[in-house]
Parts: sequence; structure tokens; C-alpha cells
Amino acid sequence: MNRFKITELGKEVFWLQDSERDHLVRVLRLSPGDLIVGFDNTGREYTGAILKIEDKSVTCRILSTDHPDVEAHTVVYIVAGLSKGEKMEWVIQKGTELGMRGLIPLRAKRSVMQLEGSKAQERVVRWQKISAEAAKQSHRVQEPQIFEVCAWKDLAKQLPQDTQWLIPYEEEKTQRLATVLDTMEPERPIAMLIGPEGGFDQTEVTWAQEKLGAHSVSLGPRILRTETAALATLTMVLAHYGDLG
Amino acid sequence: MNRFKITELGKEVFWLQDSERDHLVRVLRLSPGDLIVGFDNTGREYTGAILKIEDKSVTCRILSTDHPDVEAHTVVYIVAGLSKGEKMEWVIQKGTELGMRGLIPLRAKRSVMQLEGSKAQERVVRWQKISAEAAKQSHRVQEPQIFEVCAWKDLAKQLPQDTQWLIPYEEEKTQRLATVLDTMEPERPIAMLIGPEGGFDQTEVTWAQEKLGAHSVSLGPRILRTETAALATLTMVLAHYGDLG
Repeated sequence: MNRFKITELGKEVFWLQDSERDHLVRVLRLSPGDLIVGFDNTGREYTGAILKIEDKSVTCRILSTDHPDVEAHTVVYIVAGLSKGEKMEWVIQKGTELGMRGLIPLRAKRSVMQLEGSKAQERVVRWQKISAEAAKQSHRVQEPQIFEVCAWKDLAKQLPQDTQWLIPYEEEKTQRLATVLDTMEPERPIAMLIGPEGGFDQTEVTWAQEKLGAHSVSLGPRILRTETAALATLTMVLAHYGDLG
Repeated sequence: MNRFKITELGKEVFWLQDSERDHLVRVLRLSPGDLIVGFDNTGREYTGAILKIEDKSVTCRILSTDHPDVEAHTVVYIVAGLSKGEKMEWVIQKGTELGMRGLIPLRAKRSVMQLEGSKAQERVVRWQKISAEAAKQSHRVQEPQIFEVCAWKDLAKQLPQDTQWLIPYEEEKTQRLATVLDTMEPERPIAMLIGPEGGFDQTEVTWAQEKLGAHSVSLGPRILRTETAALATLTMVLAHYGDLG
């Protein structure tokens, strides 16, 4: 069944508007009586039958409500040093499928693109769309949050106070990710700091260690590109706590 | 130090030719006396000083030989149902960084692109280049093997007889990847079968189970795109045996 994001939820019906309505009508050409699935980012999922198709909205009668166990139980955020367009998009799309709770784009020292002002806002809107689309395709019931582009000094206040921080770092030769994950608490949020192309500067790693209490970890002897490091670390964190595989 | 693939290895010198020579001379503009690293796909790595730059080759004096512990100890192959160009390229590039030993492109039932004859050969050459480039960037000392495009019936004979087969499958709801990996032997090769866009057909999964003894596994409740499934499974297999993270 096709999946749609609910615009408004009533007691017995829900409504789809804007692009969700248009997708249903124009692309999928569904008709009254057809069954669809709606979700509203609360974790619930509704099976609905199309009741009425209008110019601005589609009304669906709710047939059943479900609360599927599809979201990762461990809350994992990616903090991604800004890198060129396509890489960020990949991390957002695949990170959403894998199960990240959100992503914070970070202005890192070696970020070639720094994204200020309205350009940053436009880009975030675009990233949110990519994430919403991937959430739908992967059958998630909660879209990840794509945060505003952020500087180091504003990073800590974006996430809950009890967040545990990880920073994969090429120069870290002894502490392995799996060992550090054994010492962390899966009930508390985890944020992983991923350097941009060219990696984090040593001063950034020190800052993260001192100000955030971040654990620097090694991902092993092979050098990973930024987008590969982000997705591999996310995969390993989720798998470690039984949220993937 | 810049890394190059050795064309020919002597006792005291090695030579670079073709694109490796051109890259050194034209792009990096290195000169006699400069130090580089050469590798020859045997697992060894050579530090060399440029001795002589000629029209067709560069000669380097070997200063030291090393055998870095950079390759994964568990041999993992990806068998990837053919999907559209960019997805295969991503899997090959990132799979190389992560540590796959090789990739077999498979003509699956739902592969939109079937790639026959000379087109298939051209594509394999292109994939080999992507893999070789990624091996260099990730500091590997052995390039993965990109196999010829293959049909189901010819698959088993491509890999060693004692290969253990895995097939992530959406309809598999009980067997988790981690549980199956606990029962497998990391000293024997592992091949993971990844469906194309749209996934494997039920008959293909049955065939793999019956003819290859493949274990079908679940990757969890979220639906992953083919390229995400390939890289996440590779990451989890390598991490499970301590070869990543």
C-alpha cells in the first residue's frame, strides 16, 4: 500500500494536502475506495480508505491504527561536517533508511562550503525533503529531524544534555568503536561527529573531547571517505544495540 | 605520501607506467628525489624515491618494504543484483573502502539493466577503475576483484567451494544477521547476495537457499534501498568479526 504523510488527523478521518495530495491524485491516480497508509510522525500508522478527492485535499476514513515497531530504539544523531552537496544528500537519504533520529550539519574548519544565511536555509529545506521521502520509502513512522546549519559553539545546546558523543578520528589508533560502545548507555542519545572531506582539524577533536566529553574512536586501518564513515558508523552503532541486522 | 600502483617490481627498484606515471608527472608534478608509496596487490607496500622520469615510465629506488595490516582478515564478497549505473558505482567505491575482497555483478530477474556482451565488458572495466582508485585512496594494499557480469547458474563456480552464502531478504522475519554470523566461520569466505532495485524474486531466494545453502537473513524492520543494504551488510559482517570499527 502507498504511504502518505498526514496533514491533519481527525477522530475518524485524516486529510492529505499539498504535495501528498498531488502525488496521490496525479502520480498514483488513486480513487475513492482505494486503501492507503498514513503516518503523522508520532510513531502511529493509519490504514485509510479514500473517501473524497477535492482540489486542495484528500479525505480518508481511518480503518485501523497501528504502532509498528519500526523505529530504532537507540536515538542516534549524525553531526556531519559540511561537505559538498551530493555527499550530504547521500548521508541524509541513507542515514534515514538506516534509522538515524536526526542530522546536524556542522560548519567545520575544513568544510569547503560554509553555507551562510538564506543559502543555508534553502539547503536545509531541501535536505528535509530528502529525509522525509526516504522515511516514507523505508516505512518509517517518524521523520528524522534535519537541524539548521550549526557552528561548534552552538552544537551542545541542539541535543539533550545527557547525549553521549563519539568522534571517529584517523589519528586515534587504540580505542575501537565497539569497545567504546560497550561502555555507553543505549537508553541515552548518541551523537556521532563526522569530519568533512579532509577530516577534522586536531583542535576540533580536542574541543569535542574537552567540551563535549566526546570519545574519539578508530574505525580501523582503512581510510574512509566522509560519507562512508558516517554511514558505516551509524550502521555499527545501531547494529551494536540490536537496532539493525 | 602519494600512493601508486606498481607496474613492474625489481629487486632494488620499481617502475610506474601508463596512468600511474602520468598522474605522478602531470597532476602531482613530482620530481626525482621525491618520496612515494608503491603497492603491487600482493599485500606489500614499498616506500620509494623517484630516480628517473621518462616518457613512458618512472623509476623509483626501493627504500623500504612494509606489510601493513590494512586488509580485512575475513574475506567478504558482494554479489550485487545489477542496478542502475550510479548505485553499482557507489557500492563498488564504498565497498572497496570498507574492505570487500571482490564484487560479482549478477543478472537478477528484476534487474532493469541486464548488460550483455561488449557493454558488460566495458562496464566491468569502468568498475575496476573505480575500485582501484578507491583502494588507493583508502590505503589498501590489495585491490578488490570486480568479476565479469554473471548469471545465477554460473555463480557458484566464481568463488571458492567453501564459501558461505548470505542473502538478506525482506520476507525473512525471524533470522537476524548477527545470529547467523555467530554460526559462520570467519576463516572461510563469505558471499552476500544483494537484490537489485525491487529485490530478489522469491524463486531466486529459494534457489540460493537450495543450491548454495544460503542463509536468508533479516536486516531489520526498515526497508533499505539496494545500495544501502549492500553497504550496511558489508559493514555489519566486517564489524562482527573485528575487521571494522
